[in-house]
Amino acid sequence: MKRRDFVAGVTGAVVGGAATYGVLKSKKPAEKKSAMPAPAVNKGLKEWRLVTTWPKNFPGLGTGANLLGELITKGSDGRLTVKVFGAKEVVPAFESLDAVANGTVQMGHGAPYYWKGKQAAAQFLASVPFGMTAQEVNAWYQWGNGQKLADEVYAKMGCKFFPSGNTGVQAGGWFNKEMNSLDDYKGLKMRIPGLGGEVVKAAGGNVINLPGGEIPPALQSGALDATEWVGPYNDLAFGLYKSAKYYYFPGWHEPATVLDNFINMKAWESLPSDLQAVVQTANAAVNQIVLSEFVARNNAALSTLVNKHNVQLRGFPDEVLKGLGGLAKQVMNDIVSKDPLSRKVMDDYVKFRADAAEWSSRSEGAYLPARQKAL
Amino acid sequence: MKRRDFVAGVTGAVVGGAATYGVLKSKKPAEKKSAMPAPAVNKGLKEWRLVTTWPKNFPGLGTGANLLGELITKGSDGRLTVKVFGAKEVVPAFESLDAVANGTVQMGHGAPYYWKGKQAAAQFLASVPFGMTAQEVNAWYQWGNGQKLADEVYAKMGCKFFPSGNTGVQAGGWFNKEMNSLDDYKGLKMRIPGLGGEVVKAAGGNVINLPGGEIPPALQSGALDATEWVGPYNDLAFGLYKSAKYYYFPGWHEPATVLDNFINMKAWESLPSDLQAVVQTANAAVNQIVLSEFVARNNAALSTLVNKHNVQLRGFPDEVLKGLGGLAKQVMNDIVSKDPLSRKVMDDYVKFRADAAEWSSRSEGAYLPARQKAL
Repeated sequence: MKRRDFVAGVTGAVVGGAATYGVLKSKKPAEKKSAMPAPAVNKGLKEWRLVTTWPKNFPGLGTGANLLGELITKGSDGRLTVKVFGAKEVVPAFESLDAVANGTVQMGHGAPYYWKGKQAAAQFLASVPFGMTAQEVNAWYQWGNGQKLADEVYAKMGCKFFPSGNTGVQAGGWFNKEMNSLDDYKGLKMRIPGLGGEVVKAAGGNVINLPGGEIPPALQSGALDATEWVGPYNDLAFGLYKSAKYYYFPGWHEPATVLDNFINMKAWESLPSDLQAVVQTANAAVNQIVLSEFVARNNAALSTLVNKHNVQLRGFPDEVLKGLGGLAKQVMNDIVSKDPLSRKVMDDYVKFRADAAEWSSRSEGAYLPARQKAL
Repeated sequence: MKRRDFVAGVTGAVVGGAATYGVLKSKKPAEKKSAMPAPAVNKGLKEWRLVTTWPKNFPGLGTGANLLGELITKGSDGRLTVKVFGAKEVVPAFESLDAVANGTVQMGHGAPYYWKGKQAAAQFLASVPFGMTAQEVNAWYQWGNGQKLADEVYAKMGCKFFPSGNTGVQAGGWFNKEMNSLDDYKGLKMRIPGLGGEVVKAAGGNVINLPGGEIPPALQSGALDATEWVGPYNDLAFGLYKSAKYYYFPGWHEPATVLDNFINMKAWESLPSDLQAVVQTANAAVNQIVLSEFVARNNAALSTLVNKHNVQLRGFPDEVLKGLGGLAKQVMNDIVSKDPLSRKVMDDYVKFRADAAEWSSRSEGAYLPARQKAL
């Protein structure tokens, strides 16, 4: 992907499959430099590095991090320049948070459940099995206690936190066999991170976690029998259909995975308040724009998977969903019984979910079937 | 609402019922002024006025416009200061677009269907009966052709356009009788704007459009038999339960109403590109934060309506939904047959909706019932 894709204009022009959201053009007729003189380097211009857990420019995820860097750089008129790196360019994917916490770089982009080894509570900030949808969890972060609780968790890891993208409801994953009962999880070698992985483990699965880039060869070689990744748009890009035939829905394990922007705490606190506002606002914008990209692209990718690659779509049977739902409660209660901060986060999440789910049953839950009847 | 509510801190602290989203505090310990010297007034600092169609500080809508002004002012470090006015403070609600187009003020905030008298196509940019949900329509604006088409429509009205908030799926409205068949719309005096209003008119209703602030007295006096407004959060604030007993779901007529930020074209073009980026990014952030507020607050408001004010909840019968769906197609085909720009917008919208609805049936549409079974 070339840099010019990022400046494809305010209309969000789409260029091919790995299109990026258009930030304002630099060369519009309206272009004028700000009336203030460009400040010299010694006047406090900041240059930050942002490391990601994603393969460089990976659709939706890596490009979401690119957009974050672009919006901050552009909106701050270069007072804060953010340069974005893919996994392994500076540090390996799962060392991103350490690199930010210890000040090697200033910013990172990934997903909270990657840091569960440091703080178990981080899992509840990413996605909860049978948890909130993107719309619901954004409400929790922006108007409930989500941001405050996440800040508490990330402060323990030396970082400031922002939600910075969302995948929406993921696909349920790729399987080399049909899943007809809970027993089919026994011995299944599956890549599935976070709390969903704990649930599969409780169902007897053999859970193996790998960063995104390592999944396709592992599925190909038989080191994995099954994997989830994101949804049709990303899964098509990874070619997962080549190694597993059955594609399951819905993604009960990740109904809305929050991506995280984590910032070295001292670097964050060193920002003047206007640049803090730029970073906060850019994250809120990216949070929605990334979700929108998945919504915009998933269906076309799904059609390609089905019509070109003969992928077999399956829905999890009710019995499996009920079994997994019961295990999810056990697994989460078990985790929070050992970690007070996880309990604090989960209790608040579950309380907010009850209210949000009730409203969803009157809004999207009532509307989607009504639309189907009417059209 | 006091100004200090807007600076309640990065955690989005909630202060009572009409809480506002927290923009960064001005008085944090980390507070430092940018290293650049504060530029003098004669160095091109801009002060803009933003007029709204909403009552001053109206929950969700008016406060969303306030937040937009705040994010721009803060993120630009005061290089662009935006002062927000409620309906009637500068001009009446429905004269906001004229005031922006003729340069009386620089910015406005409302909903596109308010401008259908100027451009019929604006209706398709606001909300379409049985149209897209918030998540779907955001994808259309951000990754489909929505922004480009909206810019074309608003350019004809002398303005630059940004989506700037969304109500999510609205409630179906307040009625002083039960709605058991399409015939019940005959002669019904109902306030319902945009395309939904055209559909009700086609069903025999007597459609009367009023700005928000004039609805409660009209419903009280019997000048209206029925009205829709937004959803539980706003409808409770207006006290609509006092004058109509039945509250219907879902809002087939406005499954996701887009709010608009319209900017005088010359003022927009006069901005340097960094300030254009600040405005664009602030709108993308506000677009999501406003939606999140409705999601966060609707259920509690609905509980109050039912448990405290004895409101009777009703779902539209399938027969009514099917009848309205058929009329919606007729009405929209009729509008686009007279206006090529409306046809262009609608055709693109309908095409995007088909894809988006297919994906929704695998994501939220499959997930919400699965969650209900599992929990």
